[in-house]
Amino acid sequence: MQDLYPSRQTASPELHPRIDPVVHGRWHPGAPLTEAQTEHFDARGYLVLENLFSPAEVAALQAETAQLLADPAALEAETMILEPNSGEVRSIFRIHEQNPLMARLAADSRLAGVARFLLDDEVYIHQSRLNYKPGFRGREFYWHSDFETWHVEDGMPRMRALSMSVLLAENTPHNGPLMLIPGSHRNYLTCVGKTPENHYRSSLRKQEYGVPDAESLTAMVRDFGIAAPLGKPGTVIIFDCNLMHGSNGNITPLPRTNAFMVYNAVSNRLADPFGPPTPRPPFIAARNAEPLTICAGPLVDHGG
Amino acid sequence: MQDLYPSRQTASPELHPRIDPVVHGRWHPGAPLTEAQTEHFDARGYLVLENLFSPAEVAALQAETAQLLADPAALEAETMILEPNSGEVRSIFRIHEQNPLMARLAADSRLAGVARFLLDDEVYIHQSRLNYKPGFRGREFYWHSDFETWHVEDGMPRMRALSMSVLLAENTPHNGPLMLIPGSHRNYLTCVGKTPENHYRSSLRKQEYGVPDAESLTAMVRDFGIAAPLGKPGTVIIFDCNLMHGSNGNITPLPRTNAFMVYNAVSNRLADPFGPPTPRPPFIAARNAEPLTICAGPLVDHGG
Repeated sequence: MQDLYPSRQTASPELHPRIDPVVHGRWHPGAPLTEAQTEHFDARGYLVLENLFSPAEVAALQAETAQLLADPAALEAETMILEPNSGEVRSIFRIHEQNPLMARLAADSRLAGVARFLLDDEVYIHQSRLNYKPGFRGREFYWHSDFETWHVEDGMPRMRALSMSVLLAENTPHNGPLMLIPGSHRNYLTCVGKTPENHYRSSLRKQEYGVPDAESLTAMVRDFGIAAPLGKPGTVIIFDCNLMHGSNGNITPLPRTNAFMVYNAVSNRLADPFGPPTPRPPFIAARNAEPLTICAGPLVDHGG
Repeated sequence: MQDLYPSRQTASPELHPRIDPVVHGRWHPGAPLTEAQTEHFDARGYLVLENLFSPAEVAALQAETAQLLADPAALEAETMILEPNSGEVRSIFRIHEQNPLMARLAADSRLAGVARFLLDDEVYIHQSRLNYKPGFRGREFYWHSDFETWHVEDGMPRMRALSMSVLLAENTPHNGPLMLIPGSHRNYLTCVGKTPENHYRSSLRKQEYGVPDAESLTAMVRDFGIAAPLGKPGTVIIFDCNLMHGSNGNITPLPRTNAFMVYNAVSNRLADPFGPPTPRPPFIAARNAEPLTICAGPLVDHGG
């Protein structure tokens, strides 16, 4: 398969126009987003949806999450990322196949229906995880385009995927919320592969695989600025697979928790990786592209 | 001298009411702050002053700062804090005695006059520094009360000091701005001294000297919230010596730079440290309490 988005192959970063659309379908009155929302996603690469879920649904997701993080014994060991020092659970991958409520969330029409509309195809979960970032010592997550990694390391051919973060704790300005560079999704920034011999030591430290360079990031932020959507638990942040994003660390007492789902178009299922020959394991990048059966109605039985 | 604010002596943190006033003088119509500003400082422990300096003054401070950071050869070696890897200058201490413009800034009536009013005494510079926090890899600064350190390690007897940060780069919500816990200055949170034997490893990591405990910080943030004043270059943030503060790291391309001056009342000059017997060196904590001669008028000659 032709590599339409080569990266990590040149000694200098390159910025190429995106080949694929952002909104793959065409807006119509029956679409699950308004025309303005659709245009916002197209132009800025992200969208914030509030009040999608009822308080009872949010409470149920939070309770399930707390239980999963506190007692992960029933889960597959390889899907859990633990804190090296304390052994606390930081992330649980492939959560949509390990927990019924998370499976139901992934298939919910309010998420999967929007993904199907924007990607104009049946969709499946490329990656899912539950993230818990504690207060006081939450770590930063450096800038990156997910697509660059998914393409090079996992073999995702085209830009026809998106992520949804369902906030399960409040995003405040101070607890290291997700930061996005709106508009950055419209170009593809390649990452440097072989570090030239004459780079300075300070450059060397940053020239790891898949890490965008400082000069390009500076230009992007100068041109587009930074958005850091805030929101109550239950807020959903949708962002394009090629949007540059990251987050600062968090010394506040306020933890961050979210359920994270990556939807990919079934027509865009993974091929062989375009970089290293061995793809990452399926719990990080699903190779089975069985389309989701989308579910309407509330996530949980309200007991009525 | 009696230790009115003992810390690092007990196995559990303690919260004691502050003995000293916050605003030591009494507001009057000729004061350099409005009555509302004075009450804000008293109640919340900080105050933001904008447009104190002309654009020419701000530009002069920025230019001087850039030159000092780029070519520190003329400065005392011990006053410079360098980045371990790159050798770049991160902070220059005792800047008010090493650079004429910084000396003039420290003595400026718009800063020192306000300090003299709030502390109701002649003032001197307890500590000064120029801070440069780069973009992309700016480090966090964990929560602390300055007074706790100044008292225990430097021998500052009472709470009759304050800090002023003159922003020389913009504070945005995203570049790790100074975070304050408004109202936290009204109590004195002691830090733990000897770590009990039966603590967990995760606790041990946090139980360093002079570090406030997580439980107390959680209660403070729950009761008071967090303020992170934003502002253009030239903005001045004043905060009480006992206000709990810190900052997150910074992955954005936007550096943070400020000139930082700590004013202490001459009547509150340093005694012997209340903790370890040897005080920190004078470039970190001045032991000569010669009062500042306050200067009015512009910082720089406008060439007219």
